[in-house]
Parts: sequence; structure tokens; C-alpha cells
Amino acid sequence: MVVTKKQILIVNGPNLNLLGKREPEIYGHQTFEQYFEILRDKFEGQVDLHYFQSNHEGALIDKIHEVGFTFDGIVLNAGGLTHTSIALADAIAAVKTPTVEVHISNVHAREEYRHHSFLSKNCIGIIIGFGLRGYDFAIQTFL
Amino acid sequence: MVVTKKQILIVNGPNLNLLGKREPEIYGHQTFEQYFEILRDKFEGQVDLHYFQSNHEGALIDKIHEVGFTFDGIVLNAGGLTHTSIALADAIAAVKTPTVEVHISNVHAREEYRHHSFLSKNCIGIIIGFGLRGYDFAIQTFL
Amino acid sequence: MVVTKKQILIVNGPNLNLLGKREPEIYGHQTFEQYFEILRDKFEGQVDLHYFQSNHEGALIDKIHEVGFTFDGIVLNAGGLTHTSIALADAIAAVKTPTVEVHISNVHAREEYRHHSFLSKNCIGIIIGFGLRGYDFAIQTFL
Amino acid sequence: MVVTKKQILIVNGPNLNLLGKREPEIYGHQTFEQYFEILRDKFEGQVDLHYFQSNHEGALIDKIHEVGFTFDGIVLNAGGLTHTSIALADAIAAVKTPTVEVHISNVHAREEYRHHSFLSKNCIGIIIGFGLRGYDFAIQTFL
Amino acid sequence: MVVTKKQILIVNGPNLNLLGKREPEIYGHQTFEQYFEILRDKFEGQVDLHYFQSNHEGALIDKIHEVGFTFDGIVLNAGGLTHTSIALADAIAAVKTPTVEVHISNVHAREEYRHHSFLSKNCIGIIIGFGLRGYDFAIQTFL
Amino acid sequence: MVVTKKQILIVNGPNLNLLGKREPEIYGHQTFEQYFEILRDKFEGQVDLHYFQSNHEGALIDKIHEVGFTFDGIVLNAGGLTHTSIALADAIAAVKTPTVEVHISNVHAREEYRHHSFLSKNCIGIIIGFGLRGYDFAIQTFL
Amino acid sequence: MVVTKKQILIVNGPNLNLLGKREPEIYGHQTFEQYFEILRDKFEGQVDLHYFQSNHEGALIDKIHEVGFTFDGIVLNAGGLTHTSIALADAIAAVKTPTVEVHISNVHAREEYRHHSFLSKNCIGIIIGFGLRGYDFAIQTFL
Amino acid sequence: MVVTKKQILIVNGPNLNLLGKREPEIYGHQTFEQYFEILRDKFEGQVDLHYFQSNHEGALIDKIHEVGFTFDGIVLNAGGLTHTSIALADAIAAVKTPTVEVHISNVHAREEYRHHSFLSKNCIGIIIGFGLRGYDFAIQTFL
Amino acid sequence: MVVTKKQILIVNGPNLNLLGKREPEIYGHQTFEQYFEILRDKFEGQVDLHYFQSNHEGALIDKIHEVGFTFDGIVLNAGGLTHTSIALADAIAAVKTPTVEVHISNVHAREEYRHHSFLSKNCIGIIIGFGLRGYDFAIQTFL
Amino acid sequence: MVVTKKQILIVNGPNLNLLGKREPEIYGHQTFEQYFEILRDKFEGQVDLHYFQSNHEGALIDKIHEVGFTFDGIVLNAGGLTHTSIALADAIAAVKTPTVEVHISNVHAREEYRHHSFLSKNCIGIIIGFGLRGYDFAIQTFL
Amino acid sequence: MVVTKKQILIVNGPNLNLLGKREPEIYGHQTFEQYFEILRDKFEGQVDLHYFQSNHEGALIDKIHEVGFTFDGIVLNAGGLTHTSIALADAIAAVKTPTVEVHISNVHAREEYRHHSFLSKNCIGIIIGFGLRGYDFAIQTFL
Amino acid sequence: MVVTKKQILIVNGPNLNLLGKREPEIYGHQTFEQYFEILRDKFEGQVDLHYFQSNHEGALIDKIHEVGFTFDGIVLNAGGLTHTSIALADAIAAVKTPTVEVHISNVHAREEYRHHSFLSKNCIGIIIGFGLRGYDFAIQTFL
Repeated sequence: MVVTKKQILIVNGPNLNLLGKREPEIYGHQTFEQYFEILRDKFEGQVDLHYFQSNHEGALIDKIHEVGFTFDGIVLNAGGLTHTSIALADAIAAVKTPTVEVHISNVHAREEYRHHSFLSKNCIGIIIGFGLRGYDFAIQTFL
Repeated sequence: MVVTKKQILIVNGPNLNLLGKREPEIYGHQTFEQYFEILRDKFEGQVDLHYFQSNHEGALIDKIHEVGFTFDGIVLNAGGLTHTSIALADAIAAVKTPTVEVHISNVHAREEYRHHSFLSKNCIGIIIGFGLRGYDFAIQTFL
Repeated sequence: MVVTKKQILIVNGPNLNLLGKREPEIYGHQTFEQYFEILRDKFEGQVDLHYFQSNHEGALIDKIHEVGFTFDGIVLNAGGLTHTSIALADAIAAVKTPTVEVHISNVHAREEYRHHSFLSKNCIGIIIGFGLRGYDFAIQTFL
Repeated sequence: MVVTKKQILIVNGPNLNLLGKREPEIYGHQTFEQYFEILRDKFEGQVDLHYFQSNHEGALIDKIHEVGFTFDGIVLNAGGLTHTSIALADAIAAVKTPTVEVHISNVHAREEYRHHSFLSKNCIGIIIGFGLRGYDFAIQTFL
Repeated sequence: MVVTKKQILIVNGPNLNLLGKREPEIYGHQTFEQYFEILRDKFEGQVDLHYFQSNHEGALIDKIHEVGFTFDGIVLNAGGLTHTSIALADAIAAVKTPTVEVHISNVHAREEYRHHSFLSKNCIGIIIGFGLRGYDFAIQTFL
Repeated sequence: MVVTKKQILIVNGPNLNLLGKREPEIYGHQTFEQYFEILRDKFEGQVDLHYFQSNHEGALIDKIHEVGFTFDGIVLNAGGLTHTSIALADAIAAVKTPTVEVHISNVHAREEYRHHSFLSKNCIGIIIGFGLRGYDFAIQTFL
Repeated sequence: MVVTKKQILIVNGPNLNLLGKREPEIYGHQTFEQYFEILRDKFEGQVDLHYFQSNHEGALIDKIHEVGFTFDGIVLNAGGLTHTSIALADAIAAVKTPTVEVHISNVHAREEYRHHSFLSKNCIGIIIGFGLRGYDFAIQTFL
Repeated sequence: MVVTKKQILIVNGPNLNLLGKREPEIYGHQTFEQYFEILRDKFEGQVDLHYFQSNHEGALIDKIHEVGFTFDGIVLNAGGLTHTSIALADAIAAVKTPTVEVHISNVHAREEYRHHSFLSKNCIGIIIGFGLRGYDFAIQTFL
Repeated sequence: MVVTKKQILIVNGPNLNLLGKREPEIYGHQTFEQYFEILRDKFEGQVDLHYFQSNHEGALIDKIHEVGFTFDGIVLNAGGLTHTSIALADAIAAVKTPTVEVHISNVHAREEYRHHSFLSKNCIGIIIGFGLRGYDFAIQTFL
Repeated sequence: MVVTKKQILIVNGPNLNLLGKREPEIYGHQTFEQYFEILRDKFEGQVDLHYFQSNHEGALIDKIHEVGFTFDGIVLNAGGLTHTSIALADAIAAVKTPTVEVHISNVHAREEYRHHSFLSKNCIGIIIGFGLRGYDFAIQTFL
Repeated sequence: MVVTKKQILIVNGPNLNLLGKREPEIYGHQTFEQYFEILRDKFEGQVDLHYFQSNHEGALIDKIHEVGFTFDGIVLNAGGLTHTSIALADAIAAVKTPTVEVHISNVHAREEYRHHSFLSKNCIGIIIGFGLRGYDFAIQTFL
Repeated sequence: MVVTKKQILIVNGPNLNLLGKREPEIYGHQTFEQYFEILRDKFEGQVDLHYFQSNHEGALIDKIHEVGFTFDGIVLNAGGLTHTSIALADAIAAVKTPTVEVHISNVHAREEYRHHSFLSKNCIGIIIGFGLRGYDFAIQTFL
């Protein structure tokens, strides 16, 4: 019997390429690439896990369009675009693949302008404040 | 060798006693008691899972005080109080036990006044929109 | 032939137990209990009229849950909770029994913060400013 | 013994001439003229019931001035002017005859801009959401 | 074969009778009557073009009611009422004939209070800033 | 030598026909007609003083259009329309005759919504709070 | 000669039962019960000092009603309810006994939402920021 | 028979000492001192006219206190302090002498922050936009 | 005689590449490429019609710069960037070629955050709600 | 043994020199100088009590600077400057001497603009509404 | 050849006399007088550098008037008045000498109310956050 | 002795490539490239000056990341992104190299939406309104 693995894409937005390097008191010391390997191993049997990071809003939208009619799930941490990008929110709504919104830090314990997300209403769920582990939970929601 | 199980309390606020009965198109058909049994079974080896529901803000605060200096975690869905109760938010901050905030539905896809939570900044993390399964993820964050 | 009388509950919120005692220039000199007897007599043949007052938001919600799947109507004057309680508004929406919102005084001629009601959108109708007589009209809407 | 009947005027503002024709899912299928006949019959012994409708703010004000020093009551549904006309609110305050504000639909369950009424603070009471029956209740408040 | 021409009404609101006379640097030197003749000629074979102007909100509503269940289209430039009249917006929603909103000048390049229109959400489309030519485009949308 | 008298129109808006009748504690006991005679006498040699009152926004605009290209001055007390009518403000801007805005009472000592005037920026000056005497001052500004 | 001692009630709201336990850097290390004994001793000859604490808004209102027509003074620290409870503010206004509002910490140096109190306007005075000593001053205001 | 002349003080606030020098396109070319002589001559028989200018809020308040219990009227143009000084507004309310507020330019046709005056509600009247002549009208209001 | 055809560029922003695929109940079933061919044919004799779509704000700005000093017109539908991009608005203002803003759906009948456009004040005109046909009208405005 | 008395300065801001003269229904009939003598007597053994009043913001700041590095306490009632002066708030923060903010009347029961104090967050505590007695309490806080 | 040196005035507002004394973690340890000597030396050949400090808004305005028609430049750090003084902003606009606004600390990284300056729009430029060195840059802008 | 020159990058955001071409009345006639040569010459001995311009938010972020852990300073004029890009503000905070924010024109004398910068709080300083010379000052701050 052939089991088809779920196709899931993790999308990281602006500045998340600096994880492990940037403000470690907020974001921790691990790079996302290191963590991604752990995730890939953990879900190996069930999920084909893909990863995309860009600091370009347009590139994030392009990627969501690319996978958004065939993949089973998108896990999206849009960084600072979370609070400003209607275009990205529209992209999530425009595709068929469901999206889970993830934030590493507790954005509600930070600046006021990080409390509002344009993306949330178009996502199936939101996971905030659990560090990198939030990505793990997000993947599980698609299983 | 004796393993000490984690003490975790699930706290449900106003109207969540009606789960399975109330607006099933938003909250589903399962009662929370039924789901609680599933959770208890799932985490049986690791967690002593407790449950408390009240429609009284004061009773929720009393309960948080009661367990808040000895338990390992609180999973809190404060229902409508989420958006109005500073007293409850203060209770979370006042105790030592960490709290995870859970919402069954995607509150950000509902009325504007459900988009702000007084509790979030005092919680270690927030899980929104995954139905009852959000409680499951929340418990895992304490393991 | 047996006629089934309508089951209707009047629910009064915080401070309405002081009617006749509290600020009579706004609320008049009659206690609600006295007025309730008049109402019970007036609707005797048609309605089984019940009364509940509490200063506890939670108790009001409990009561609405208790009657909200079997009674024919709820007449609710939530006092100061009108303007602050999303939990109470959710309770009204969560049950099957329809609710009519009543205010004794003209809240729109008082402080700005009394102009907004969280309850109104979940009620079938609202009656404001007619003194105790508003309860009478409210009962009639269920006949 | 001669009994003097109360003089009461029902005033309907913009678009209420379309009742029965306009958005029946909100306002029902009955024309106001049909309903007015029912009201006139019901209160025949006690009330001389008059009716005035206009889409002109100025005509509504003129009419309120005309009856406002001799009539016993005005029942006013100002339609969309409710939310925008300070001039109409001033007219209500300027005359001696008391006014009851009526809305057929539950304006608080509709657009945000229908939640505020310039008229309410100058009326003796407000009745919202009971369909055409609200006019009936309003007339009774003058008896 | 008999071809039925479309019945289309152009409605101009307050101060638009002064076109050609009023602030020509904003509105140009042509009177609307002159332009109307050009439009009538241009669409002669397809459209029976009617014109109504009033400075009275009520008269505009009366006219919309009058044609609003039989005409094929309304082209509406409500002038200053655009930004203040819920009653007019309700009239557009209440009738069956679809309405196109037109503004001669680019209202978004003028005072802040001209940036919001109560009418827009009830219109099928909006045309802003093309001078009198906007009426021409509006008529075409009904063909 | 022939002296041409100035043509000046006093325009009173909604509810100002009730002066002397309406809320005398705010507006005094004199009717405007009585005061107008006094003004006409006082300025007899210099001014042809005209008077227009209407409760209809449209009629006020029509009148301003009618005199607004030939008269020397308009004295306008627009009553409640002051705070809501962009169409009236546009009329003042659209004509050539300059307008002085007058308020009998000190609107800034009354409700918050009376503190803003859409008209003021299009008037040459504003006179507030001096009772009927404000009209006298306003006329003088055109001499 | 018999001297009647003043009857004064100290009312503490949500989370104040944790004093000495909760965030000592803000609220200090002393329990309120310890401090209450000191106060009782200090005012022994002049005051019968009573104490009530609850995390339940309704219980606080019940208590204010209970003593509010016979006691000489209420000292109220409503905790987080200060900023959210209109019902509690109404209770203070509804009774005859005057209330003094106390806050242990300087609420104006903390979160923005702690800067507004619904209670203040109904209290005779407010004392903020002097630690537990504020209760002492508050009692003195009734002597 | 001895006629007592009215004692009236004109108070000019910050930057009004620059009149004739500062932005003449807004304020004109005449110095206030020149204009004051004209006013003094005009009202010579009826009024002892005094003048005070300062750029110091405190000096303006001192002066208002000094004359505010004996003079018959104050004419106040507080310049930029109009929009920011509650202390000055309090001074006007604290004294017995009535104050008229004057603005040379039409502040409502300038920056948004010039549209609100803290002083207006404490003045008997306000005169705006008539240039220096506004002072003349203001003096007349005290005769 | 050689006729020079107008150079006109249609610019589509984020997510408009999904037209025909994305939310067809809002945007219809036709792809923009299909519609573009129709437009090209229609205006063949008069216009050299060009097309550019990108999900990248920067690429849209680059393109506007590229054509903005030589082309005769730009037709811009910036999608979600309409409401958030000051940089794009600045690009329109910075170039010489005039721009017409187009929206396929009636943005004013959708979410509140779609009601404001940073672009509008820098465009010569705006066309909203006529489906793909809006592009057709926009092109005509340049002929 | 030599006891050093505490050096404490009472600072009164604008209009407080009129105490006893100004609006006695709000501020009472006693002058501050009379009350100051009572205070000086009461605290004679413990405190060297100093007094400074000015209507000049700058003078208040100068005085705070003068004593603010040597005195033991400042009791400040800044009058109307409380709500508008960031400079005064900065002065309090800039010196070493702690400040207690006092208001004679209950500012929260007065105009909205009296509800916010720029000073509070820089003071150690705030005492509101106890009349002149508030100064007494304030001095005690430094003992 | 005679070279005329530029006349430049540095104006420091409230609390800046405490530099070196006040909150050194924000403002540093150097007094302004010390720094002024350094500046005077540095620009000796080119600039006659003057210095004025006052805690009095009025004195600052007086000084700006005094030099504002003859000097070549004003360097202004208005301290807390920056955010509250329209009178000071008007003074800058009223004189001919151009002003550069300077802030020692990065006001945008501090309290929200320090983010808005009434002065900025009337200054030729603004320099923020470079410590005392900002004055140096400001002087250079006049060379 | 080897002197290491400072590595400094000037980053220009959207539309700044049009300098010299775009709205010269605001931005002047010089291209940035021309000015950059002047700057490079001026600081030749001390600074290795680099330049990067892009209309792409993502490219600006990429560049800041690229140099942000090794360079000595970044001079950033983000154009319209200043007011909308949290992602860019995060990039500045995320890297180690300090950034100075520059604006050529006085943004505070332009549209309201240009008065707020998301970047400022993360920069060490801000220089506004001195034309291209602002870049010169900014470079100096790193020397």
C-alpha cells in the first residue's frame, strides 16, 4: 500500500533568516535551519516538509501562489509583515491551501503595533509565544 | 523510580459549559467533558489533568490562586472575559504557575471586540482557532 | 382544553435590588418586588412569570443557561453589566430562548459610557426609558 | 360625560414609505398604511391617531413644530436621519409634546453607523427591534 | 423588431445646479444642462436619458423612489450629501434599480471629510475625478 | 447723489422659527420677527435687510444660490445643520456673496457635537454667544 | 458619656488577597491581614474597622449594599475591577455611605489601561501610590 | 450727574506684539498699538480702555486676576494659548468679570489644532475672523 | 499621415495574477490575460497596450519609473498595496505619466481597511466596482 | 540631641492664589494662606514648611529646580497645568526630591480634560478630592 | 576685507539648565555651559554664538522675537514645550530668522507624547538623538 | 601606521533613484549619484563610502543584513517605507551596525501620514529637512 505524505511548506518572512543571530533574548540562539532539520526528522514519515524564507513580501506571495493549490498546509511566520501586509493576507485567502500563523515570541507582550495581524482572520489558526516549537504544533494541525 | 506527574489545570470561562449545545457551527457538537476524557487518557502517564469551569469571573480567579503556586501549568479559555477582565489578567500575572491562553474558534475572524485579549501579555503563549484540539497543544507546551 | 402558559423570566442585574432605595430621582420609589406582583397579576392567565436578581455576572449567566433552552422569553435589565459584559452577551446568544433588553431610565440621556450595550445585538428588541413599565411591554412582546 | 381622546401623531422618516416594498427580509411585507389602519382601529376609543411620512428632513421638522405644542404624543421613526440629523433632534427638544423613538429592525445588529441616535437623548423612551409592533407599544406609552 | 431603449436617470445633488458658475477651477466652465444635451445625443439610440437636480435631500430620495422600480439605471452625483446622508444611501439600497456613483472632481485629493461616502457600498460602482466625462462612463456601465 | 443701499439677507435654519417659544432659557423670549423689525429700523438708511427662514436644508441652499451672486452679504444661523451639512457649507463656498456665521447661544458651552461647524471655514467670520445681538454685529461687518 | 465609634469597612477586590505573595516588587511583602491588625490598633478608640475581600465583583457589590446605608465610610481598593466595572461604580453611587478609592501602587506609572477608573467620579476622594499607608489616610478622611 | 465709564481691558497673548510685523497676509499691516488708539478714541465717552500684552501665560493670568473682580469686561485674544491653556481658561472662569474671546483671523480656515479653544466655554461670546475690527465688536458687547 | 498610437500600460499588483482562479464570487472566472487580449483588440488602432503584473511592490515601482516619463497613461490596480503603500503612491506622484486607479470589486462594500487608498489623491481618477470592464473605461480616459 | 526638621515645600500652580475667592462651591471659602498657617502649626516640630504659588509655569519649574536637590519633599497642586504641562512633569522627574500630587476637588467628577495628569507618573503618589486636607495628608507621606 | 560673522542664538527650554545634573543616563554628564564653550571655540571665526535658557515659555518667545528679525539662525531645543506649545511654534513662524529644532535624546524611543512636535513644521530642519553634538550640526546648517 | 577607514553604507529607499528628476520643488535638481561623488571625495580619508538604492523593501532588508554585522554605520533614507515598514524597522534593530535616519525634505511640514516613522525608535538619531546635506551630517555622526 502506498502512503502519500502530506506536502507542507514553512514560510518565514523578513528578518527570520537572522534567527540565532538577532536579538537572542527574544528569539533564542538556534538558527532556523538547524531547527528545520529536527522538524524534518520528526515528521519524516508523515510529511514532506519544505522551507522558504524571504525578506521580500512579493517573494512570499509568489511562493504561496506556487504551492497554494496543491500543498496540504502552509505554516507562516510573516515577521513584521504580519502587521502591515494586506497583500499577503489576500494571498492566503486567495489560495486553497490552509495556512497556520506562527509567532515565536509573544507579540502581545511587545509593542502595541505588534498586537494586530492582518493575516489572522484568513488563517485557520494562530500559535503565539512558544518559541520555535510553535512550528512543530502548526505542522501537527495538518496531520 | 518514582515519576512525578505534572499537575495541569484546564480552566474554562463563561458559556463554555454549553459546548456541544451552544452555536455548534462555531464551537462543534462535542461537550467539553467528553473531550476532557480523551485528553485525560492521552496524557495519562505524564499529566494529572484537572478541570474547572465557571461562569463567574471571581470563581476563575479563586481557582487560579488556589493552584497557581503549586501546579505546573494552567490552560485557560476565558471565553468572553478574555476581552474585558483585567482582574483575571492580573490573577495570571500574580501567580507563579504559567498559563497558556486557548480559543476554540478563530476570534480574529469574528467581531472586532474579540480581537483584543487582556490576558495574552501575561500568558506564555496563545493558541487560537484549532477547535478543542487547541487544549491538547496547550497541554503539550508544559511537557 | 388545557392551555399552556408561557414561561417568562425577568432577570435584573447589579444594583437593581436597590430599586426604590437607590437614586429615586432616576429610578423611582417603587421596589421591583412590588412591581413584580402587579405584573404577575396582570399576566396571570397567560404567563408564568419568574423573577431573578443578582449582582453577580456569573449568576446571571448561570440563570440564563438554566432557563434558556425551555423558557419562552427572557426580559433582561443587566444594569451596569450592559455596557461591559461580553460574557453575558454571549450567554444570550448561546441559548435558544429569546431575550428582550430593558432599561428603566433613558440611558442615552446619561453618561456616554451608558450609550453602548454589548447585549443589544443579541436581543430581539430593546425598550429604553419607560420606567418599570418597560418590563410590561417586554413581556407583551412574547405573547 | 365627554371624554377627550388623546391626539397622537406617528411620524415616519425617509424610505419608510417603501415599507412592504423595500428589503422585506429586514422590514417585512406589510405597508405602513395597512398597519396604520389596524392601529387606528385598536386605539379608536382612546386616541385620535394621525400619520405623517416624508423623505424631507425639513418637512418632518415642520410637522413636529405644527403639532408639538398641542398634541399629546409623537411616535417617531426617523429612518436614516436618526443617525445624522441634529436639526431633527433639536426639533424634538424644542417642542412641548413628548416623543417616543421607534425602530422596526434591531439597529444594533446592523451597521455600526446605525448604533448611534442623535434623537434618543431628547425622547422619553426608545423601542427597537419589534417590527411594526413597536409603534403599538409606543402609542401605549402615552395612555 | 422593436428595440426598447434603456431608461436611465442622472441625479445631481446640492450645488451641482451651479456647474459652470461655481468654483470653475474645480468643476469647469460648462453647465450641466449643456453637457446633458451632448450625452443625450451620444446615447440617443440606446438610452432614454432623464435628468433631475435638487438641493433637497428629500427630493432626491423621492425621485429615486419614483424611478427605482422601473428604470434601468441611476447615475448619482449627490454632492455634499455623499458624505453625510444615510437616508440617501438607504434609498439606493431600498430600490431595485442599480446606481452608479459619480464625482466630477477627485474627492480624495480634497478635504478629508470628502474621502468617505455613505453611498458607495450600496452602489454597483464608483467613478471619481474624470470631470463631466464620468457621467458618460457611468451611463455606459448600464449598456 | 444716489446712494445704493447694501442688500443683506439674514438666513435662519431649522427650529429658529420657534425663537421666543423654544427653550427660552437658552434662546430668550423674543421672536425673531420682532427682533428683525428692530434691525431693519436700525440699519434702514444703509441696508435693505431681507429675511429667510426654513427648516429645509435644500431651501436654505436654494436661497443662498438665489442671492449669492448679487447680494452684499449673508448672515447665516444654520441651527443644527451647522454641525452636519457639508452641502450647506459647499453652497456658501460656491457663491460670490460673503457669509457671516452667527450663533445665538455659546455653542461651545453646550454639547460636544455643537463644537464643530462645517460652515466656519467658508465664512468670513463667526459670531457666537451674544444672543440676538450677534445678528446686529454681523450686519455691521458688511458696512 | 457614650461615644459611638465610626463604622468603617475596608473592601479589597480581586487579587488583593495575594498581597505579600504577589509581585512583591510592586505591592510589598506584607499581607493585608497583618496590616489590617496595625490599622485596627491605631484607630481603635475611634473606629470599628471591618474588612472584606473578594475576587467576585458581585460579592463586592453585595457587601457595599449591605453596609452602604448604615456605615460611616467605605475604603475601596477594587483592583483590576477599578478600570472595568460600571456595576461597581453604580453600587458606590447607589448607597448613602461615602467611599474613598485607594490604590497601593501608582497606577499612573503602569499600563495605560490602569489610568482610567470608573469608580473615581462616584468617590469622595482618591489616594494613589502610597503603598498600604493609603488605607490609613483613607480612614482618616472619615474622622 | 456723574457718568461712570466702563472699565474694559484688552488682553493680547503670545506673538500679538508682532502685529503689523508678523505674517501680514494673515494678520494685516497695522500694529495693535495704532489700532488701540483708534479704539480708545471711538469709545472715549463710554469706556476707559486698557491694554495688556504678554507672551507669558502666567502674566496673562496674573492680569486677569488683577482686574477680574472690578472691571466690567475683558476682551481676550490669547493667540496660540487659546488651544492649549487650561490654566488660562480656569482664570477666566475664576474671576467675576466677563470675557469675550476674539480671533483676528478665521482660525477655522487654518490648521486643525486651531479649531478647538479651551477658553470658549468660559467666555460669554466669541468673535472670529473680522480682523482687528473684532476687538471693536467685543467692546460693544459690554456697552 | 502617420498617427502615433498612445502608449498605455496596465499595471496589476499582488494576487491579480490569480484572477479567474481566486475567489471567483468576488473577481469572476476570466483570467486577466484573456481579458487583456480583448482590450488589445478593442483599442488596437489607437493604443499600444502593455501589461505588467507583479506581486512585488518594488517591481511595480520600478515599472512605473520605467514608463512614467514617456508613456501616455498608466492604469493601476494595486490590489492590497492600495491601502498600505505610501511608496507606490509616491511613485505615481513622482512620474509625469498620469495614472488611473482601478478596482475590480466594490472595495467600499468590503472590509473597512479596503475603504482607504493611499494612491487616490495622486491619480487623475478612480474607477471602482465594474469588474474587468473598469480597465476598459480607464483606457478610454486617456483617449 | 539635635533633630533636623524635614524641609518640605508646598507648590501651588495657576489660579490657586484665588482660593477662598474663586468658585467657592468647588474650592471652599478658606484662603490657602490661612490654611497654610494651620498646617505650619500642626507640623511645627517635624517640618520646616515652605510655600510657593505662581501662575507661571516657568516659575514653578524654577522653584522645583531650586529646592529639588536638597528638600525632603514637594507637595504639588499644579492646577490647570496638571493636564497640559510636560515641562513641569519633566521638572519633577529631573530633580531628586520626591513629589506628591494633590488636587483639592475630585477632578474625575469634572470635565473630561481634567481626568488626565502628565504629572502623576513622575510623582510618588496622588491625593484627590479631600479639599485642603489633601495637603495635610501629602505632608504626612514624607514623615 | 571685513568678514561679518553670522549671529546665531542657541535657545534651550525648560529643564535643560539641569543638563549634567538631570537623568544623566538620558542626557549625559556635561553641563550645557561647558559644551557651549567648546562650540564657541569651534565656530569662533565664523559665528557669534549666543546662548539663552529659560524655563518660561514666555521668555523663550520674547527672546525669539528679540533676535528673530536680525539674527542668521536660531537653534532651539524647547524641551517639554516641544510637544505642547503652539505659542512657541507660532513665534518661530512669526519671525524671519530660520530655526533648527534639536533634541539631545532620541525622543521617538521614549514616551508616545514625545513623538509629536508642534515646532517641527515651522523649522527648516530637525536633528534628533545625537546628544549635545546635535547643536554642533545645527549651527553648521547655517554656515 | 595603518589607518582603517570606517565602512559606511548609504541606503536609499523607494523613488529616491528619481532625485533630480522627481518633484524638484521638494527634492532639488541634483541626482543622488552626483551628490554621492561629492560626499565620497569629502570623506575620502576617513570613510569607505558605499551606496545602495532599491525600490524593494526586501532588497533594502537584505542589504542591511549583509552589512549590518561588519560595517560601522548605515545612513538610511527609506522614503515612503519610513511610515509603513515594520519589517525594515525590525531589520535595523536586528543588526549590530547603528543606523542614522535621514529625510531630505521636512516631512513634518508635509502630509500627516509622513509625520510618523516606524524606523526612528531603532535608529541612533534622525536628521530631517536639510536637503542632501543631511547625508553629510549623518556620515559625520559616525566619525
